[in-house]
Amino acid sequence: MRTTVGIIGAGPAGLLLARLLHRAGVDCVVLEARDRAYVERRQRAGMLEQGSVDVLQECGAGDRLEQEGLIHSGFELRFEGRSHRVDLPSLTGGRTVTIYPQTEIVRDLIALQLTDGPPLLFGARVVAVEKADSAQPVVRFDLDGREQTLECDYVAGCDGSYGASRRALPADGVRLHTRTYPYSWLGVLADVAPSSDELVLAAHERGFALHSMRSPAVSRLYLQVPNGTDPKAWSDEAVWDELDVRLAAGSWRLDRGPVLAKSVTTMRSQVIEPMRHGRLLLAGDAAHIVPPSGAKGLNLALADVVTMARAFTHWHMSGSTALLDRYSENCLRRVWQAVYFSHEMTTLLHRAPDADAYDRRIQLTRLRRLTRPTAAAAEMAENYAGMPIV
Amino acid sequence: MRTTVGIIGAGPAGLLLARLLHRAGVDCVVLEARDRAYVERRQRAGMLEQGSVDVLQECGAGDRLEQEGLIHSGFELRFEGRSHRVDLPSLTGGRTVTIYPQTEIVRDLIALQLTDGPPLLFGARVVAVEKADSAQPVVRFDLDGREQTLECDYVAGCDGSYGASRRALPADGVRLHTRTYPYSWLGVLADVAPSSDELVLAAHERGFALHSMRSPAVSRLYLQVPNGTDPKAWSDEAVWDELDVRLAAGSWRLDRGPVLAKSVTTMRSQVIEPMRHGRLLLAGDAAHIVPPSGAKGLNLALADVVTMARAFTHWHMSGSTALLDRYSENCLRRVWQAVYFSHEMTTLLHRAPDADAYDRRIQLTRLRRLTRPTAAAAEMAENYAGMPIV
Repeated sequence: MRTTVGIIGAGPAGLLLARLLHRAGVDCVVLEARDRAYVERRQRAGMLEQGSVDVLQECGAGDRLEQEGLIHSGFELRFEGRSHRVDLPSLTGGRTVTIYPQTEIVRDLIALQLTDGPPLLFGARVVAVEKADSAQPVVRFDLDGREQTLECDYVAGCDGSYGASRRALPADGVRLHTRTYPYSWLGVLADVAPSSDELVLAAHERGFALHSMRSPAVSRLYLQVPNGTDPKAWSDEAVWDELDVRLAAGSWRLDRGPVLAKSVTTMRSQVIEPMRHGRLLLAGDAAHIVPPSGAKGLNLALADVVTMARAFTHWHMSGSTALLDRYSENCLRRVWQAVYFSHEMTTLLHRAPDADAYDRRIQLTRLRRLTRPTAAAAEMAENYAGMPIV
Repeated sequence: MRTTVGIIGAGPAGLLLARLLHRAGVDCVVLEARDRAYVERRQRAGMLEQGSVDVLQECGAGDRLEQEGLIHSGFELRFEGRSHRVDLPSLTGGRTVTIYPQTEIVRDLIALQLTDGPPLLFGARVVAVEKADSAQPVVRFDLDGREQTLECDYVAGCDGSYGASRRALPADGVRLHTRTYPYSWLGVLADVAPSSDELVLAAHERGFALHSMRSPAVSRLYLQVPNGTDPKAWSDEAVWDELDVRLAAGSWRLDRGPVLAKSVTTMRSQVIEPMRHGRLLLAGDAAHIVPPSGAKGLNLALADVVTMARAFTHWHMSGSTALLDRYSENCLRRVWQAVYFSHEMTTLLHRAPDADAYDRRIQLTRLRRLTRPTAAAAEMAENYAGMPIV
């Protein structure tokens, strides 16, 4: 098989890239290791910046997002038993965020792709990306037990942090920056309507808690837990009890319901520099990971592929590789800003295992600055709502 | 001897407090361990927030400050060989800072005090503060080899972090928060006109450097050095050479001159909570230390005594201890904000001994945000120029 851009991975990054390239008349093929049902069920992030919403709408994947997405114009910060609302539009000149699960974006993009899009092969497990240094890279993959090859002009690695794209990077000349936080998130999906219309972020002395939602009928809740926590060690009742303690504020009550899923996520940052090696370009989790506290992972992935699609389109139309040559540099500024913001949100809200009274005072000082319309609150809100994708 | 408020220490905090109390008709006596010449020569900070300037002018100590103080409306941030000016008035709604050495403030306040002020005893070394828990605390001190006592209604501890006031605090019920940074400042006073009109803060890969001034004829320069550095280990030439490297930007040149003094300062934060024990109230360095990177130490000390003088005046006039009872709480919000800001400026500008490429990327990301009129720049500028003393 032969194509112009071989895309590895049918997550939101790979699928959006395929859609953008298809609309620009650039040939591509998407290879996805899993089957369709699996991909459409993967539980992931769900908060979209306005720039991300705009991109999905512009490429025709915004119909259901517009109907079902929940527009949030703020969130609640809770600490010391009190709740403080952060109003995004007044701090950012009108910006909001939209709650719409990644799973749904993937479904919408797959439906479009299968209707009129370029080839999308499920169950196509990439074995290796070869000759990325040459003018004709090759992707070798297994499909139905047969090894096949995809010859491309370029390869877009959108296959996450454990995918074949990362493994294809040379040991020299590529740098992996990494940080691991000393705590994790116990995430719970519950079949109960959210107890608040907006997100609630609690910086309790016992640790962080987050009340969020997947839809008007499904709650998504998180508790900071020690690294290495086994989700089975937490009974449903223990989860609800701890959420009650950490989220408590005045007469607010958390409604309980059947727990549908429970899992533990580690908190880490990773950045690969550069995000391009020869004719292999990385996007999304393949290139970088941020802790979920800033809700930036999905938005960064979409911003990456917008930048990448623009570069491929420019090259396709003009023959110039100028934008492709600047791809990594152009993405990395946004990436490092997101890594920094995510770090700030993480340390603002969590309790480090070795935290003492000094740390708590600093944490409360940082939190209090955000409860009034200060420059600090404006900076946080701007980053939370997201900068336009330039 | 007997007085209403016994003030320990004739630094800027103790002297300003004496002046404010004197003007409010509250009796006080100032005890200073050193002689006048020593006190008037102590080299310390030199950057005044507008609120500090206002207070000094309102109490009649602003004549020379107005004539000789250098008003700065911005400073330069240097990194990666380029210079970026931070404009304070446009970011803060018109605020500026004033360069006027602490030594000069002390001289002005001593001159006033000796003219018409309450008693100021030099060479009065405080041995102990006793009975702070009672209604009649006693300060015991040595003067000319004779031990004397000062009976007071209240004692104001303005005698720094190694003074008798701190030693008088009980082991229980008082908390000392402390952090030490893994680097120090080598400070140099040089007999040469400053090479820039404004401060230059350089976040070089080799470490922080600061170009500052004491007056239009005297430069004040700093280099980040490892903890435990002996200032004698740095020849004058080595200091200038390293300053050249770290401060380099385009065609800018650093003028050299005779080095008048060289010293090493450790970087640390300390906060004592509460700032009051019984009838002993602490102010300035006796209560808290911040690293010099934020230039907040002197300004915090002045804000403390403004708050304290107001509380004493209120009590003196009404008999109510309401403001005295809230003294510590009222001061500590500002203190923790300054501790946090100083930490932010410190980590923004210095290179930690264990810093890796990830840390440098984050540092550059933080620095770049400050080179444009962003909310981040506004927040930094507001803190740098200082909040009004409420």
